[in-house]
Amino acid sequence: MAKTGRRQGGSKARRAAVANAAIRHFPEIKRKIPIMEVTNREGVELIHDFAMRVTEEIGCDFQDEESIECWRQTGAEIDGHRVKIAREELLALIEQIPSSYVHHARNPERTVRVGDGHAVVSPSYGAPFVRDMDGVRRYATLEDLNNLQKLNHMASSVHIAGGTIVEPVDIPVENRHLHMTYSGLKYSDKPIIGNVTARERAEDTIDMMKIVFGDEFATNNTVTTSLINANSPLVWDETMLDALKVYAMHNQAVMVSPFSMAAASTPASNVGTVGVVLAEALMAMAMTQVIRPGAPMLFGVPAMTVALNSGAPVHGSPDSAMVQFLSNAMARFYKVPHRAILNVATSKSGDMQAAYDSMWGLFPSMLSDANWLTMGGGMLEGALTVGYGKTMIDFEQLDAFYHFLQGPDFDDIEEVFEVVKKVGPGRHFLGELHTLNSKLFIFDSQHNNSYEQWDIEGRLDSEAVGVLKAQKWLQKYELPPMDEALDEALLDYIARRSK
Amino acid sequence: MAKTGRRQGGSKARRAAVANAAIRHFPEIKRKIPIMEVTNREGVELIHDFAMRVTEEIGCDFQDEESIECWRQTGAEIDGHRVKIAREELLALIEQIPSSYVHHARNPERTVRVGDGHAVVSPSYGAPFVRDMDGVRRYATLEDLNNLQKLNHMASSVHIAGGTIVEPVDIPVENRHLHMTYSGLKYSDKPIIGNVTARERAEDTIDMMKIVFGDEFATNNTVTTSLINANSPLVWDETMLDALKVYAMHNQAVMVSPFSMAAASTPASNVGTVGVVLAEALMAMAMTQVIRPGAPMLFGVPAMTVALNSGAPVHGSPDSAMVQFLSNAMARFYKVPHRAILNVATSKSGDMQAAYDSMWGLFPSMLSDANWLTMGGGMLEGALTVGYGKTMIDFEQLDAFYHFLQGPDFDDIEEVFEVVKKVGPGRHFLGELHTLNSKLFIFDSQHNNSYEQWDIEGRLDSEAVGVLKAQKWLQKYELPPMDEALDEALLDYIARRSK
Repeated sequence: MAKTGRRQGGSKARRAAVANAAIRHFPEIKRKIPIMEVTNREGVELIHDFAMRVTEEIGCDFQDEESIECWRQTGAEIDGHRVKIAREELLALIEQIPSSYVHHARNPERTVRVGDGHAVVSPSYGAPFVRDMDGVRRYATLEDLNNLQKLNHMASSVHIAGGTIVEPVDIPVENRHLHMTYSGLKYSDKPIIGNVTARERAEDTIDMMKIVFGDEFATNNTVTTSLINANSPLVWDETMLDALKVYAMHNQAVMVSPFSMAAASTPASNVGTVGVVLAEALMAMAMTQVIRPGAPMLFGVPAMTVALNSGAPVHGSPDSAMVQFLSNAMARFYKVPHRAILNVATSKSGDMQAAYDSMWGLFPSMLSDANWLTMGGGMLEGALTVGYGKTMIDFEQLDAFYHFLQGPDFDDIEEVFEVVKKVGPGRHFLGELHTLNSKLFIFDSQHNNSYEQWDIEGRLDSEAVGVLKAQKWLQKYELPPMDEALDEALLDYIARRSK
Repeated sequence: MAKTGRRQGGSKARRAAVANAAIRHFPEIKRKIPIMEVTNREGVELIHDFAMRVTEEIGCDFQDEESIECWRQTGAEIDGHRVKIAREELLALIEQIPSSYVHHARNPERTVRVGDGHAVVSPSYGAPFVRDMDGVRRYATLEDLNNLQKLNHMASSVHIAGGTIVEPVDIPVENRHLHMTYSGLKYSDKPIIGNVTARERAEDTIDMMKIVFGDEFATNNTVTTSLINANSPLVWDETMLDALKVYAMHNQAVMVSPFSMAAASTPASNVGTVGVVLAEALMAMAMTQVIRPGAPMLFGVPAMTVALNSGAPVHGSPDSAMVQFLSNAMARFYKVPHRAILNVATSKSGDMQAAYDSMWGLFPSMLSDANWLTMGGGMLEGALTVGYGKTMIDFEQLDAFYHFLQGPDFDDIEEVFEVVKKVGPGRHFLGELHTLNSKLFIFDSQHNNSYEQWDIEGRLDSEAVGVLKAQKWLQKYELPPMDEALDEALLDYIARRSK
């Protein structure tokens, strides 16, 4: 990354343009282009049959007694912690999951629908490190989390607040969930992602939501969506199951996302990976419907692969893209909302690889019909680090996809023809009123001027430009209004529950 | 870009892996996934009608008398240089264009089909500058062109040689085409891109091809594909028309590609841009069928936009992606092969923006059904510069797309199920024979190991890794065999024709 401080003289105009960009909040994505498919109905049915044979013939381990008790209320075959279930019975439970749900925000204008053609974007998740504004990679702090909540709040195409955008490592782990939830509520008014690292932390999250929304509203409506992972292949551990059960019981949404890594925790096969992941996810999702029929659940896939030349997990590859597309087709087959990963780079810095890695997640997730798009921007190092600069550059990519998914615009076709006729051969359209009202997309951090201008302006790379933009945004950030009594009640809860 | 020389100690393993990667030549892309669409039949017919109204009501300027003479053999309405033509007549000419053609290489193993579900990738085109191995941007030389021909020859997923990968600025312009054609023939045995900058230079190209293939073969078969641009809106100049006529007369393929920049040379509308560009391209393509019925022609679109905040042309945006998808749908409607641009970054260096810009071309071009994919890799600064490092990183992206377009693999589904059954819950697949035979894709320049390892290895960014890879490849490059007499005949021709 070029140092952001040096030779800034010539880039004033550019930085002013960045500073003056208006903050808008876009509604959920409702794509107006066809859903992209990588296989046909026959392929979908082959994967379905694969998944069902896994649930029937191999089964899945549920490592706590409470879950096994749930399964006893079904016709599942239980042997210790191993549960097998016939496809008819499994699918009857899955059918109870709503195809979409409303996730309420403390500001009703930010409330979103998830599913049934509505998609939302959520921020980075769970990184212990930041790549900071000086390009230094260090442990994340509560200040970083708050900063990222602020930036995220201002991002037009991000619909959801954290959650654990980064882990505030300076807060003791037993209190961290309280501060993360408060950070999301305080610095944003977008919907909130819940905590899952222990039963009582899930319960604390729900209690804080009750303070915000009132007891009754918070139990009968969805005010959090959380993310739980299986230990693929085919194992659900007690911690994750505890969080899943708490949230399901309270009608809170959960993204049920096996932590698949093709070639390690799932087979070295895209089709096989989706088959195994489906079996794991569908079984956990089905179990929630025993606890609370109709509780909103999403089928999720992280779609990593292991690079067999190094043994390292890789985000962003043609195979993860294929898994993403196939998973989406399966979610539509089962009529459940689908969570996909947008943007996790394996790269360590904001280089070409970082963007290429990201695009292997962004394009497939955006072009399929995924409903909850996690990790909207900024993640490096396979999700271990969030970069400030990359976060800002990625936000613009989200805006670009939002624009793209609106599809081609036929509305003004007659007006455009008249403009072409008026201009005629050999002239240009720059001065036409239609051009001045252009809706064509502009990346505000993209350097599209001359090399010479770039040189004079200090040869900033796009990560450095992103850092400058983060600084500008933090300067002009405004706290969304929150009732003082509510704020005090939340802080009081944190004080009482802190250990 | 990090300096490539420093602290290389720890990256030995990585560099060895890069050096030992086998060189393979992939056949044409035959995509096994559905074609992605952004509109339906109704949208296609609206754009068709727009384009036809342009040819009928507005017309196009053909700025030379010879072309006007061609048009006199049709029922076109001619007024000076302005030509208008009724849709029925235009389409009757377009119908004579073959939906695919065979482009012969001097090595028959590299001969390709273009169209009818076959797609080929060609390299960068026409850049006067290189970003060299030291990260310096300077004028390109013949040595750079030869180097890039060598690298291009070794790239698995690139099917075509240059052409003017870069402009060898050290060679006088009147002789440059001779050396460019020789460079492609000498350092590669892949099919050749022709010269278009003057009538006699096109004729020289064909004469050199006659030396390689023999007179009769070179006139009855397609041994070059060339690229000509209109001066949008709706003007074809004499130079471009001269080259077009020479190639058409000799049954050589031409990509007829209006140089559209939405908001400047075409309207600030994706739909309108495609409509205008179609009118321009279809009229020039139709004219070639008067000269030689059945001459292979491709409909091409560069799909740039002008950023109205700076007035600068932008490659790689959601609007260029939309134009790309729409153009492809139109090419399929007219049943003509389609040329798209893969990968041109507006960025000045190999940063995140460079890769993001590129992906807005790569994904649309690869996911639609484009048949000739120009600018396979390395272009920066809106096509003014080719970067050595980016070229190598982009080659891997091409390989990744090649892999992706093979679609999901259902062939081993039974074997995969048995592996899952054998491994069972809670274990891993790393040691399984199926995993060891994995066909999952690996980016050989992607850093997927730990941050600490990256730090020890010198914190190389991906552009620096690409430069190292270029150096390795050039060391192990082997000249493809060429008959000594042929080489002498080509050099003799160049000597005779040089001014």
